[in-house]
Amino acid sequence: MDFLSSLEQAWRKSDSMLCVGLDPDPAKLPATLGAPDDPDTVLAFCRGIADATAPFACAFKPQMAYFAAARAETQLEALIAHIHRKHPGIPVVLDGKRGDIGATAERYVIEAFDRYQADAVTVNPYMGFDSIEPWLARPGRGVFLLCRTSNPGGSDLQALELDTGERLFERVARLAAGDWNRGGQLGLVVGATFPAELARVRALVGEMPLLVPGIGAQGGNIDATVQAGRARSSPGMLVNSSRAILYASGGADWAEAAARVARETRDALRRAAA
Amino acid sequence: MDFLSSLEQAWRKSDSMLCVGLDPDPAKLPATLGAPDDPDTVLAFCRGIADATAPFACAFKPQMAYFAAARAETQLEALIAHIHRKHPGIPVVLDGKRGDIGATAERYVIEAFDRYQADAVTVNPYMGFDSIEPWLARPGRGVFLLCRTSNPGGSDLQALELDTGERLFERVARLAAGDWNRGGQLGLVVGATFPAELARVRALVGEMPLLVPGIGAQGGNIDATVQAGRARSSPGMLVNSSRAILYASGGADWAEAAARVARETRDALRRAAA
Repeated sequence: MDFLSSLEQAWRKSDSMLCVGLDPDPAKLPATLGAPDDPDTVLAFCRGIADATAPFACAFKPQMAYFAAARAETQLEALIAHIHRKHPGIPVVLDGKRGDIGATAERYVIEAFDRYQADAVTVNPYMGFDSIEPWLARPGRGVFLLCRTSNPGGSDLQALELDTGERLFERVARLAAGDWNRGGQLGLVVGATFPAELARVRALVGEMPLLVPGIGAQGGNIDATVQAGRARSSPGMLVNSSRAILYASGGADWAEAAARVARETRDALRRAAA
Repeated sequence: MDFLSSLEQAWRKSDSMLCVGLDPDPAKLPATLGAPDDPDTVLAFCRGIADATAPFACAFKPQMAYFAAARAETQLEALIAHIHRKHPGIPVVLDGKRGDIGATAERYVIEAFDRYQADAVTVNPYMGFDSIEPWLARPGRGVFLLCRTSNPGGSDLQALELDTGERLFERVARLAAGDWNRGGQLGLVVGATFPAELARVRALVGEMPLLVPGIGAQGGNIDATVQAGRARSSPGMLVNSSRAILYASGGADWAEAAARVARETRDALRRAAA
């Protein structure tokens, strides 16, 4: 099944727009789990979070930087294999924001789709279409291009106005919804911290799936985000939350606390969509 | 010693602008070395290339994608440690083109500078200054921001004209030479395939070091590149060549052939600068 179909199925089955971000910060791992700099502690934590939050999630999003800093590549492979085995039907979006030219991009494609068996990835569009094309050579997989990111500095380049009157992120959205989306595999990353711009992107891209970070610890408002970003025929969004769920408790009840916050977040997203 | 000083010393000592790119493509590794999908073959190849070409290089640039696709992270650590030990004074630019927001960028900083002990990195600027700032918190290290890349699709976004009349890559160059360059650690990646734009970037950034891919297999002309990109008080450029050197011979003489092409490329760069 292709990524878009499996995402639509996951939205229906879970009735959830929540994407649980797996960002294992060694400074915040529960002390009861083991040495925080042991890659196996990272794996045990992420596996526990995935199992606890799976009932409330439409997707998981492991962030590669945390695994790379912890020398936990083998554990990232094991984590994604675990999610596929134990929680089939919940797609994995591997968040690495890679972006490079053709021959090199092909190596990143192998890393993400063959080595890690991700269902979708995040990709940086700064190098243009020929840096995106190698990702689209895998027809079943999804590719979320960075468009309007949730950080304050996101405005430095993305909000620049072009001579056409468009802003740079609007051009990226228009390209992604048009010429670049040859196989219907593209989605966009648009932060929850700028609801007006999220609404603008939605207006430009029709039903395209949007990966929306920035609620929770980053301060994005759930109601405003859902109003701005929802699509017509499907939820249309993977609203990501990482820290607020992962570190809901630093005690022995970390998994239960994560499940509780994930359920509350799913419910808040449902209410906002109602 | 900080990165810029060690680069200046390397330019002086080697009298070379050549940066040798380490992009170990499994389809092109010498058959005599061992199984191409064995990470230790990747390491043996790159170590051999580094030893053979060190006399002619001012820097080495391992490309992370190739190591990641080959499950060769441990070997990448060993390769960089080998270069530091055997070829001290030749800086290592780790090419990963990472780019992410604050807390996540900090993990990539740990990956590049603590785990891999790189002297400098390449970073994608699309997410703005607060995604670059964590890299600058390591005062001795260098950071090359993507500005005008060598691939044809580089024009898709980088050459867009802003309402000010500037093109996007010119704005990146101006920011990198100005407000963003707080600790003097920044350089830029500017492709050899667009000499007029390389000259334009040089005019905007003064003496800032430029990492210039695109000669050799990608077709950039050495004379035009050196004329366009040189600085006044130093060579100012790391002109990268990867495939033309790495795969100069697929036979048992791969290391000697790499050394010969590296020497020829260094000499061509010297002649162009004379």
